Amino acid sequence: MKNTFGSSVTVTIFGESHGAMIGAVLDGIAPGIEVDEDFIAAQMSLRKAVGKISTARHEADEVKIVSGVFNGRTTGTPITLLIANQDQHSRDYGELAYKARPGHADFTAQMKYHGFQDFRGGGHFSGRITAGLVAAGAIAIKALRAKGIHIGTHILTCGGISDRGFGNLEADIENLSTADFAVLDDSVKEPMMKRIEAVREEGDSVGGRLETAINGFPAGVGEPWFDSLESVLSHMLFSIPAVKGVEFGDGFALADMTGSSSNDPFRNVSGNVMTSTNRSGGILGGISDGMPIIIRTAVKPTPSIFKEQQTVDMRDMSNTDLVIKGRHDPAVIHRARVVVDSAAALVLCDQLALRFGTDWLTND
Amino acid sequence: MKNTFGSSVTVTIFGESHGAMIGAVLDGIAPGIEVDEDFIAAQMSLRKAVGKISTARHEADEVKIVSGVFNGRTTGTPITLLIANQDQHSRDYGELAYKARPGHADFTAQMKYHGFQDFRGGGHFSGRITAGLVAAGAIAIKALRAKGIHIGTHILTCGGISDRGFGNLEADIENLSTADFAVLDDSVKEPMMKRIEAVREEGDSVGGRLETAINGFPAGVGEPWFDSLESVLSHMLFSIPAVKGVEFGDGFALADMTGSSSNDPFRNVSGNVMTSTNRSGGILGGISDGMPIIIRTAVKPTPSIFKEQQTVDMRDMSNTDLVIKGRHDPAVIHRARVVVDSAAALVLCDQLALRFGTDWLTND
Amino acid sequence: MKNTFGSSVTVTIFGESHGAMIGAVLDGIAPGIEVDEDFIAAQMSLRKAVGKISTARHEADEVKIVSGVFNGRTTGTPITLLIANQDQHSRDYGELAYKARPGHADFTAQMKYHGFQDFRGGGHFSGRITAGLVAAGAIAIKALRAKGIHIGTHILTCGGISDRGFGNLEADIENLSTADFAVLDDSVKEPMMKRIEAVREEGDSVGGRLETAINGFPAGVGEPWFDSLESVLSHMLFSIPAVKGVEFGDGFALADMTGSSSNDPFRNVSGNVMTSTNRSGGILGGISDGMPIIIRTAVKPTPSIFKEQQTVDMRDMSNTDLVIKGRHDPAVIHRARVVVDSAAALVLCDQLALRFGTDWLTND
Amino acid sequence: MKNTFGSSVTVTIFGESHGAMIGAVLDGIAPGIEVDEDFIAAQMSLRKAVGKISTARHEADEVKIVSGVFNGRTTGTPITLLIANQDQHSRDYGELAYKARPGHADFTAQMKYHGFQDFRGGGHFSGRITAGLVAAGAIAIKALRAKGIHIGTHILTCGGISDRGFGNLEADIENLSTADFAVLDDSVKEPMMKRIEAVREEGDSVGGRLETAINGFPAGVGEPWFDSLESVLSHMLFSIPAVKGVEFGDGFALADMTGSSSNDPFRNVSGNVMTSTNRSGGILGGISDGMPIIIRTAVKPTPSIFKEQQTVDMRDMSNTDLVIKGRHDPAVIHRARVVVDSAAALVLCDQLALRFGTDWLTND
Repeated sequence: MKNTFGSSVTVTIFGESHGAMIGAVLDGIAPGIEVDEDFIAAQMSLRKAVGKISTARHEADEVKIVSGVFNGRTTGTPITLLIANQDQHSRDYGELAYKARPGHADFTAQMKYHGFQDFRGGGHFSGRITAGLVAAGAIAIKALRAKGIHIGTHILTCGGISDRGFGNLEADIENLSTADFAVLDDSVKEPMMKRIEAVREEGDSVGGRLETAINGFPAGVGEPWFDSLESVLSHMLFSIPAVKGVEFGDGFALADMTGSSSNDPFRNVSGNVMTSTNRSGGILGGISDGMPIIIRTAVKPTPSIFKEQQTVDMRDMSNTDLVIKGRHDPAVIHRARVVVDSAAALVLCDQLALRFGTDWLTND
Repeated sequence: MKNTFGSSVTVTIFGESHGAMIGAVLDGIAPGIEVDEDFIAAQMSLRKAVGKISTARHEADEVKIVSGVFNGRTTGTPITLLIANQDQHSRDYGELAYKARPGHADFTAQMKYHGFQDFRGGGHFSGRITAGLVAAGAIAIKALRAKGIHIGTHILTCGGISDRGFGNLEADIENLSTADFAVLDDSVKEPMMKRIEAVREEGDSVGGRLETAINGFPAGVGEPWFDSLESVLSHMLFSIPAVKGVEFGDGFALADMTGSSSNDPFRNVSGNVMTSTNRSGGILGGISDGMPIIIRTAVKPTPSIFKEQQTVDMRDMSNTDLVIKGRHDPAVIHRARVVVDSAAALVLCDQLALRFGTDWLTND
Repeated sequence: MKNTFGSSVTVTIFGESHGAMIGAVLDGIAPGIEVDEDFIAAQMSLRKAVGKISTARHEADEVKIVSGVFNGRTTGTPITLLIANQDQHSRDYGELAYKARPGHADFTAQMKYHGFQDFRGGGHFSGRITAGLVAAGAIAIKALRAKGIHIGTHILTCGGISDRGFGNLEADIENLSTADFAVLDDSVKEPMMKRIEAVREEGDSVGGRLETAINGFPAGVGEPWFDSLESVLSHMLFSIPAVKGVEFGDGFALADMTGSSSNDPFRNVSGNVMTSTNRSGGILGGISDGMPIIIRTAVKPTPSIFKEQQTVDMRDMSNTDLVIKGRHDPAVIHRARVVVDSAAALVLCDQLALRFGTDWLTND
Repeated sequence: MKNTFGSSVTVTIFGESHGAMIGAVLDGIAPGIEVDEDFIAAQMSLRKAVGKISTARHEADEVKIVSGVFNGRTTGTPITLLIANQDQHSRDYGELAYKARPGHADFTAQMKYHGFQDFRGGGHFSGRITAGLVAAGAIAIKALRAKGIHIGTHILTCGGISDRGFGNLEADIENLSTADFAVLDDSVKEPMMKRIEAVREEGDSVGGRLETAINGFPAGVGEPWFDSLESVLSHMLFSIPAVKGVEFGDGFALADMTGSSSNDPFRNVSGNVMTSTNRSGGILGGISDGMPIIIRTAVKPTPSIFKEQQTVDMRDMSNTDLVIKGRHDPAVIHRARVVVDSAAALVLCDQLALRFGTDWLTND
């Protein structure tokens, strides 16, 4: 399995930055789920390039569904989602066939595909391919919402500026679901965007941290050991380009605590066993405990910068310099958050189908 | 797949803390690899309880190979490794059938297995099951070494005390391979151990961070997207109990950098394309670039502490208190490092077999 | 996994008989394989409806490749093949939402998808979906040929008429590769076609047996037990609609022999160990022995007949009669053979990649 | 995946004919299923060598469960079943390291494992490994019975003698469940056994056909295309050594019918949609239709015969003769039937868990 993820609900992605089409096949999702094309379009627009803080490449990202949906609902058979590429400027990329860009996959692609890879704009490694994940994820997100499971991701830090943490989850996730720049504290939005603009002007880029909350996920889902919820979620999240770290609950901070401060006490809350803190992020022993699932994801700075960089000319192995051309994002963190939501939603649909059967997500 | 990991080289683990036997089946590993039972025993001893800083439960952890090895070499067919449990005190655990221990999987096991789970000592969720991983991993580690691929893990931080980072990788990994307490800077060993003893006396526990380096791994292995090296490594690492965070290269720190500081420049070094820094930790676009693979793992404090904790009596859903009995580790970080080495080795053998075929690891 | 097959080389298929598009995603196949669009078109035409012995529905079946091919060669990343549906007559199918056609999947689709399935023309169960397999298979077949591995399938029996068995394999496969009606003995072609026409005039249908030979496949590929070559080949072949039996070598006939007549003697032939007979069909213990792989496949008669049939009206569960409308094939055996070739080729590419690595099929 | 089968319920098998132990790990089966060790022993005895018609090697085949069962019920975590080998005579096999036995896997094992395979008694390819499948299958069979799903297999033909077909399924399966030689018509038992004795005296062997019925399996389980019930069942059945053909319903005979005779008419029977014939063997479009699932399996003659056979001495590639020593079965058909039942049961448990969730088989 290379570009297919999942066991019962699976997603297959395909395409290249400068190819004809990108897209996804979403398979195994329950029959009878409402497919709302406006919602898919809205999710796609959350991933789109925004004003001065994003690439100048503008794609319509219209999603065409060519199979698996009948009378506005999922059939239970593969849903194929196609997105045409339109605004490619392939002439910007000729050099990349032999001069690998630092921080990009150009060199490793060469090691794996021996020069046969489509190098234009990063080819199949391009963040553009996440558009297919977002399209497929929109169906998954909608299906989960109908079951009371809500996902929201915000920009926890970017360029040295921090958002507040999650508070009232229900309200926070609701607000994030339509935010064009996903922060919980409105007052940090402009500083963050200004910071991104500033690095862009310097020909540089920034990364950031995303924080995701999943609310309403039932207890008892996941597996001990190899298919722990953390395992399957991190597997998917590390597929997203630029992600270099994933943690659950208090994550790395837990490593510095003592057991008496890190253990979450159990309490009877309205007849359910809940924990009074949530340092383990809703997962114990690899299995959901009914508390919100909390994930933080580290996104490295966009590797495409406009400063001169060192590289090797692979034609003669000489050391050389490279100045990247083309249109690039000074940051992707604000675009990545809907990718994280979508990716997580796909994993959760798979886990729920494995646990409760293929009909569980069917709308009544 | 629940307790089986991998595609071409797979490992299946089984057993419970207080059952008759635990173990592993290692399948698909190349034929002709030397199996050194002394080395397996040595690896098992690296995982064993040590002096005052570990549980009083002492297991011989003798590994019995009952299939898949013939004339001292792997046959290519499943290798079954069995380890008998001997020093169980099951009477200590009666209460856990209905009073979930905070930070443990008792409650989520109940949600998933409805009371049929073996709750004694955490049952199948116990860290004891990692002994099977270590036994199987020993064969994988040996096979990789024969190909010039070396793995080492040290305790980067524990109880507020930090080790130095990796320096001369070859020497560092060599030293770690036989260290009873895996730190690179000898002068931090005693302070760390004393800190663990101190929390034990308080009836408390500590966690820590592990740092792993993989040296000599060839470029061009891994996949873009769903089977990125980060994806498959993190999938495996999050299977290990108590792991709550995983990062590659500079990981979360990358999120705070700019592209011009985070990109690793390419240089011709002795005829090979290498990077002059290694902030991406040997992986670009999900594929190895030939530089050392660097992983950091967050291990939460052992949840078994001897202080009074809050829980719910699931028989009548009343709030109650719990004082844990039994023998427990005040820290597992020093025992976890060989588990991380073993787990990583199993993933890498699988990736190499997928990339280069099932005979690649055969010893000539 | 539902519509995705394979481990290293995978194929995902999608679409419905009356949807917008059908197609396939072929992933994991080696980089650098020449992709010959004329050859793909030629293979598609082998699957097409022929004259009076096939459905009146005529589809151009033009294959559009929208990813994974660059400069006329495979890149190593997912190849997406799209085929538009054009000649649907959906009005013919209104009744099928509640009156299941005997021998079709209408009833079982209802049991699984609860009425959300696209019932028009059999929806996702339609034999039309095999067009995606043939398109993907064409790339696999071409890749195998470049390695000296050739596949050919002929109609062994149809409507009571039998073709001769394989003789000179090389010549036979060469002839079959372009035959519009795949028989080895030219003199049986017209009688078979006339028999199909005759059953069509009666409003009835026929099935038949296909025999497949794979020549040049290397020894030592496959697995004992669960991934025996027979297991993976039969898994794929039973995916093809209407296939109800699969046998290897002398298959069911072996059941009536004695060991002394069924064992294939080993002989040194030109320096290679070969067998002087090939009753086991090139596979021993699940692993190829270097002899031609021989497979026979039973194809049931097309269930779409124009005679009155008994069914149940699922709206009120009353017994009723049904006369099928629409355009249908009186036989599919002559169209199925290229599907079998394609399906087998995809399995073999996967097995070769697992055994020898992902670059093995790369053209030099 | 090599020795592991399944997606949600999985079985891993291991061991060699002359190794220390063989066995299986059954994972993912629902918690709370009663595990009846007497029933497991009874199933093992159905697989055992019987009197003059079987090998002189006699194994106690005592199954030791070392994990996954607690208080007599499944826990939901991996169940490990171990069987010690006791009655090996390894001295009989020295020659096989270089002289491949016709019809056996000795040669293909050499091509795949390069001489590192355990060649004694066929090693990991030995039919003895099916003992693990039978042990694991016994738990699956018991779980299915508690849900009203019953499986029975009889010897349809052996040595030219035929049993009657299935009649009253419930009674037939009940009778088969304890039969020491599984035929439906008592009057064919002695002739079949005498025929086996006769070939044994000639130093020869026979094969046969098995017919399996699965009664009470719910409609709506399975998948169109790659995970059709036929696909997953045949995948498993072709894993069993000596199986060279598999057909469903009327199978190969369907290929010679017309659609009007092969289609099964639907009728309302006591409020359920059923078919008045069952030529498709309970599966339409890859999905169960609620009718009994009917499978026939071709078993080739045991390749171990005592007549002189031709082979190649792989040390110098000279043509030579071979007379097999050791103790062997003149037929395995009577021992294979419980292997088929077990194998089918494991597949069905997996399919049911995928369709209805991991708790579906839990006993109330």
